[in-house]
Amino acid sequence: MTRYQHLATLLAERIEQGLYRPGEKLPSVRSLSQEHGVSISTVQQSYQVLENLQLITPQPRSGYFVAPRKAQPPVPAMSRPVQRPVDVTQWDEVLTLLDARTDKAIIPFGGGAPDITQPTLKPLWREMNRVIQHQLHDVLSYDTLPGRRELREQIARLMLDGGTSLSADDIVIASGCHAALTLALLAVCQPGDIVAVESPCYYGTMQLLRGLDIKAIEIPTDPNAGISIEALELALEQWPIKGVILVPNCNNPLGFIMPEARKKAVLSLAQRHDIVIFEDDIYGELATDYPRPSTIKSYDIDGRVLFCSSVTKTVAPGLRVGWIAPGRYLDRVLHKKYAAIGTNVPGTQLAVAAFIRDGHYHRHVRRMRQVYQHQLETYTCWVRQYFPCGICVTRPQGGYLLWVELPETVDMVCVSRALCQLKVQIAPGSLFSASGKYRNCLRLNCALPLTEANREAIKHLGVAIHNALEA
Amino acid sequence: MTRYQHLATLLAERIEQGLYRPGEKLPSVRSLSQEHGVSISTVQQSYQVLENLQLITPQPRSGYFVAPRKAQPPVPAMSRPVQRPVDVTQWDEVLTLLDARTDKAIIPFGGGAPDITQPTLKPLWREMNRVIQHQLHDVLSYDTLPGRRELREQIARLMLDGGTSLSADDIVIASGCHAALTLALLAVCQPGDIVAVESPCYYGTMQLLRGLDIKAIEIPTDPNAGISIEALELALEQWPIKGVILVPNCNNPLGFIMPEARKKAVLSLAQRHDIVIFEDDIYGELATDYPRPSTIKSYDIDGRVLFCSSVTKTVAPGLRVGWIAPGRYLDRVLHKKYAAIGTNVPGTQLAVAAFIRDGHYHRHVRRMRQVYQHQLETYTCWVRQYFPCGICVTRPQGGYLLWVELPETVDMVCVSRALCQLKVQIAPGSLFSASGKYRNCLRLNCALPLTEANREAIKHLGVAIHNALEA
Ligand SMILES: Cc1ncc(COP(=O)(O)O)c(C=O)c1O
Ligand SMILES: Cc1ncc(COP(=O)(O)O)c(C=O)c1O
Repeated sequence: MTRYQHLATLLAERIEQGLYRPGEKLPSVRSLSQEHGVSISTVQQSYQVLENLQLITPQPRSGYFVAPRKAQPPVPAMSRPVQRPVDVTQWDEVLTLLDARTDKAIIPFGGGAPDITQPTLKPLWREMNRVIQHQLHDVLSYDTLPGRRELREQIARLMLDGGTSLSADDIVIASGCHAALTLALLAVCQPGDIVAVESPCYYGTMQLLRGLDIKAIEIPTDPNAGISIEALELALEQWPIKGVILVPNCNNPLGFIMPEARKKAVLSLAQRHDIVIFEDDIYGELATDYPRPSTIKSYDIDGRVLFCSSVTKTVAPGLRVGWIAPGRYLDRVLHKKYAAIGTNVPGTQLAVAAFIRDGHYHRHVRRMRQVYQHQLETYTCWVRQYFPCGICVTRPQGGYLLWVELPETVDMVCVSRALCQLKVQIAPGSLFSASGKYRNCLRLNCALPLTEANREAIKHLGVAIHNALEA
Repeated sequence: MTRYQHLATLLAERIEQGLYRPGEKLPSVRSLSQEHGVSISTVQQSYQVLENLQLITPQPRSGYFVAPRKAQPPVPAMSRPVQRPVDVTQWDEVLTLLDARTDKAIIPFGGGAPDITQPTLKPLWREMNRVIQHQLHDVLSYDTLPGRRELREQIARLMLDGGTSLSADDIVIASGCHAALTLALLAVCQPGDIVAVESPCYYGTMQLLRGLDIKAIEIPTDPNAGISIEALELALEQWPIKGVILVPNCNNPLGFIMPEARKKAVLSLAQRHDIVIFEDDIYGELATDYPRPSTIKSYDIDGRVLFCSSVTKTVAPGLRVGWIAPGRYLDRVLHKKYAAIGTNVPGTQLAVAAFIRDGHYHRHVRRMRQVYQHQLETYTCWVRQYFPCGICVTRPQGGYLLWVELPETVDMVCVSRALCQLKVQIAPGSLFSASGKYRNCLRLNCALPLTEANREAIKHLGVAIHNALEA
């Protein structure tokens, strides 16, 4: 964090805690500058941030005042999807979303890409150069089937932070978390099988199920605490479900972290019904609080958790470096990897292994946690400011995704078509359900920088929603 | 080619053509050196090559003589596999082969890796550096679903050489030819379906079928001319076959190029029976004769050929750059790509695109065609020299793979276990069949350099086979 961000966070906390009350005048720029030993312009920048966040308002010639408290929008309620297995559809809508990647003029609030412009990513560039200079033979050769050992050793180290102690031999590299999930599903399921998912559920995972001809049963999920154990149990009693896909830490799209007790409860439920858990930890390292939350895998005693993750969100998507710790399905995963996908690019694996080994990864992730937290707060303020009343907004505990629920009458599929012309893209909520839910919801990617253009885009989005409400 | 290789090839041709006859004395080193304007040591090196090839024999103090003509071993006969669909097995045996990649001490005659040490590959290294310096943002970002356009444009150009005129939009990038075949099969087939294959058939493709729960029916195949159209037709009349996987140019493992008339015949058979052709062209660019042979795709008028290839054999395996031109299955392939695998690494795509665009690719492939031709000849000589009588050996028209058929009593699975201790690895023929054929066959990778150690390895292999014959 820079100095002015630091100061802004401090002041915001004081306002939050009531040390400065609504309507009260804030210290002058000069006195803050002296108190904190920073320049006048730093203080001015901090005040600008707080003004953008609508925490303070300037009054010409008399200084800054704490803004009247605006009620935080509530968090959406527990979801209530249809309780039966369904086929996933809406591939065309997902394709439209993906196609936007080719158009550089579009502001991609609908995608899930991280910020790759931070200076803490610089060492990765050096590692990539080094790999090409000194390990060219490895870069050009076939990888081994499980993936580069130096990388698997580093992944094993990272997994300790989530509470899991594994060896490099327990880990298989995959070309991203998505491919890791594919391997997990191929190892456990047959076409026609049923798998339970959180609801809403990331559209990429939904399409993956469709691609493998697996049916999804969407389970009610609480935006603060995760999947309903009770509803999952009921579903398990009614349907021959093979496993459940969970994103328990910094959920996509809801942002929750499952409380530890619930993680244990869902695992013991899985044991009782002899199903597997596909644990997707792709955002888990970006939890706001440090140290990071534990994984369900860390409680797994009989190898029924197939743990999947990647550096897509923490480092960069283009590296295509992911992994799976498949527990008792290791042999099957290896065969499916050979049969369905083949080996991976060794070059990016070697660069990522060195990036982690030399401590750059932890430094980078530490920074990104703070960057994203700040951005989530600011985007939440902008949404509150520009969107109509009566909305619900999640309070993510990590990652950089925001989920907004609008009044029932708004159809975000229509709104997003209107937004196309404005070159603003969002992810309509309907993509996150196979049973027609969430047409009045949207997901926003808050990893996009806090520029004036992006603020304008949120404003346009607000106008489009207002228009839809009135139509 | 270096000077001495050039001279050796010239002399070998003269011997082949009978200009120098068996038993005849060859020109002295001094006179050849004057005639060709090369150094004494160059001539000596050439004679050494010919001696290694057993084309000439030195006689102390009197010079070199043309060796008595040894009969060329015959080419194996048309294969005769069981004519019914079978489940692919032998994953454990394939895994053993793959595991050898981790042991640097093993001489990998069983693998399919190309030679990546030639100087014509140097520009690729420069391109990789350039991409990291100047296109870092692209390298770190998600690729588009069909893959980088600059690469697809270059692939479209390459495909012209095989007679196919397509646009970049008709091509989808995949992480290797194997992944391209997976996408092709996923787009066309369901689990339980039957697909016809050449027999013998590359074990990777066989395992791919197994991974997707597709049954294989192995069709008799002629080591000179490819799949038997008649046998394929009979099979199509008997079984509900969805498609046929063909490697018509520089076949793996047999090395044939299907005559043009046969390529057309198999396509019109496919049309009559309304099945698709999965065309695997991975070795097609390495045909000995120039210009390269045409693809079946080039005759395809109704989009039923799903054409798959990669730069794995022509450039390097570690790049994981392959592609598919799926004809009328384009939309399904895109969905399956998103659902099953996800996008690819952009970095290596950008480097390969530049490598092709700037002419380095064609220069490199031109060189490799010559290198491999020379090596195939030399390895064939070594096999003839060290293996027992009564063997059959293919005469590859390109690529770098040699297929050897031994007397029926030899079990190469046993032999290859014995070879393990000698750190020599070959691909036992049984991996190339799902119905228990080819236990007396093996495949040799002649991309391995012509070193003394490799010659020794072939010698050991010969001894092991001799022992097996006598046991
Ligand atoms: C929850 C979740 N799982 C999996 C993926 C896919 O990750 P990758 O790009 O590493 O394949 C994403 C990416 O958006 C995601 O959000
Ligand atoms: C005939 C054939 N098809 C496909 C492949 C797989 O190629 P890739 O490594 O590009 O996935 C190979 C590699 O050995 C092959 O020989």
